[in-house]
Amino acid sequence: MNQLRLDPTRGEWVAYATHRQERTFLPPAEYCPLCPTKPGGFPTEVPRSSYEIAVFENRFPSFSSDAEGPDGSPEGFFRSAPGRGVCEVVLYSERHDATLASMSERHIENLVRVWADRYGELGAREDVEYVFIFENKGEAVGVTLHHPHGQIYAYPFVPPLPGREIELAREYLKRNGSALHTDLLAAEKSDGRRLVVEGEHFTAFVPFFARYPYEVHVYARRESALSVADLSAGESRDLARVLKRLLLGYDALFGFSLPYVMAMHQAPTDGGDYRGVARFHIEFYPPNRTGDKLKYLAGSEVGAGAFIVDALPEETAARLQAAVPSEPGTEEGT
Amino acid sequence: MNQLRLDPTRGEWVAYATHRQERTFLPPAEYCPLCPTKPGGFPTEVPRSSYEIAVFENRFPSFSSDAEGPDGSPEGFFRSAPGRGVCEVVLYSERHDATLASMSERHIENLVRVWADRYGELGAREDVEYVFIFENKGEAVGVTLHHPHGQIYAYPFVPPLPGREIELAREYLKRNGSALHTDLLAAEKSDGRRLVVEGEHFTAFVPFFARYPYEVHVYARRESALSVADLSAGESRDLARVLKRLLLGYDALFGFSLPYVMAMHQAPTDGGDYRGVARFHIEFYPPNRTGDKLKYLAGSEVGAGAFIVDALPEETAARLQAAVPSEPGTEEGT
Repeated sequence: MNQLRLDPTRGEWVAYATHRQERTFLPPAEYCPLCPTKPGGFPTEVPRSSYEIAVFENRFPSFSSDAEGPDGSPEGFFRSAPGRGVCEVVLYSERHDATLASMSERHIENLVRVWADRYGELGAREDVEYVFIFENKGEAVGVTLHHPHGQIYAYPFVPPLPGREIELAREYLKRNGSALHTDLLAAEKSDGRRLVVEGEHFTAFVPFFARYPYEVHVYARRESALSVADLSAGESRDLARVLKRLLLGYDALFGFSLPYVMAMHQAPTDGGDYRGVARFHIEFYPPNRTGDKLKYLAGSEVGAGAFIVDALPEETAARLQAAVPSEPGTEEGT
Repeated sequence: MNQLRLDPTRGEWVAYATHRQERTFLPPAEYCPLCPTKPGGFPTEVPRSSYEIAVFENRFPSFSSDAEGPDGSPEGFFRSAPGRGVCEVVLYSERHDATLASMSERHIENLVRVWADRYGELGAREDVEYVFIFENKGEAVGVTLHHPHGQIYAYPFVPPLPGREIELAREYLKRNGSALHTDLLAAEKSDGRRLVVEGEHFTAFVPFFARYPYEVHVYARRESALSVADLSAGESRDLARVLKRLLLGYDALFGFSLPYVMAMHQAPTDGGDYRGVARFHIEFYPPNRTGDKLKYLAGSEVGAGAFIVDALPEETAARLQAAVPSEPGTEEGT
């Protein structure tokens, strides 16, 4: 059952997917459903003995392309709609214990290409208005499978946060005649204190208004890069390099593989014109305040929407700067 | 250091409070700083040997009435402001292991009166635009002290979620000539499937658009009840009764004292006219999907703002209905 319901007190769709109650929950490594299928072994999600990167439809999807019609009314207080859309799983590597940080730049670059391919194909669908590429990493953010993977939700609506960002960028463009993300990035570069990694085409920084102590945004510098599919070969290569340096920095600073939520913001695929309004960027939200303490989203955050942060972005950025390698470390195998 | 910074990509203030890094973290029960000070014992936050309900200023406040001026610029991308406001702690009971569910109706009624008193006093301050009364309960939502207590954040701005709700209610009133919350409650009562507790003046229900499987909203039925301070004696008594029944139901259904975030939504105190637009109500968000599985806010929720729920409100409401006592159980001591 995939259904959407409208919350008239927030103006947002909420998605229901009841079959997700049954999803696989932290299986032991030897029963990992995301590893390659070993000859003579049990069949995993990937019916091959080896793979570099693999994409398949989520067996427990939050949205489904064959979702049936609403059982509520289309109008009034009980507005509902079929939860149409697509949910894909992107396996980063066949190696069960790999992480983005441990993968070679070349491998990450291929992953960027896979993301671009999926953005293009899913975004071209009639029922998809937004392609959201993300990763939940670590039990602290609720992952149910440890094998390195990201996800893609192809929503039938533009979700609230990217929607709000685009709305504000549109107002900004109208008012100032320039792009919000371009000016914001210029201001961060000019200030300099919160920059974490400077690549050839991408810049990673702790934003002035970070909601998590170690939140980092990775911005494409080119204004016309509206989505991952717009990246040139050189930009894809640079993104891979900047991501690897950032993630090596995270892990070096904490002394373990840092959990995070990774969220990609880019242009909706609803046919609108997003030039000067959307900008391809990736946001990382690690839940850790310290090595052993987490930032919980509690009363102020989930009940009022106001984030409280106990560390200044300038301080956490300085720690990250010191931990980021100037050149990525030894390239491990794919 | 208490500072606000504006996020121009979401149009929201983020609050920084660096001294909160040092806050007390899960001390053993015998060193509880929220218990009464025992004769000859170490001094707790309450310099008395006994109390019924106590309120004091948070020693690690997210907002402070003496916050100093901004160190960023007041305009442009780095807009900041002093994090002025007040943070209070409300001790529900001197009994270290009490919960709202275990307290007598009479005691909860007194707590409602304390909330009303604080709303009035904090809301009257020049620098306070919104009085947010809430409770984080249980380690699953990140509590750092187990002693039963709630909190009050008196914000210098109207926070995003209540702000959005009021904005939509204002549009609704303009369009329909009636109050959003009144019509929504009438629709829920007419449908009936999601009602959990019906009191004389309050109704508790799992909303049609619940974001958490066991989310419950407790609405004042009277349209002119804009805040907790507007409640009559009879309404306060009924609220206590409805809350106790709901919370006994939660605990009976799960077989343990259920963690939750409790968030009170009511009229801002910024001098505006909120008649027909704000409605006093309390929202409960328990993190549990089942007895041993939690709902995590991950990629879709924190990166895109789109909630995915794996249970239908009609189903969870039916379970809660069966678990709620028709009359509150034996009244325990205060």
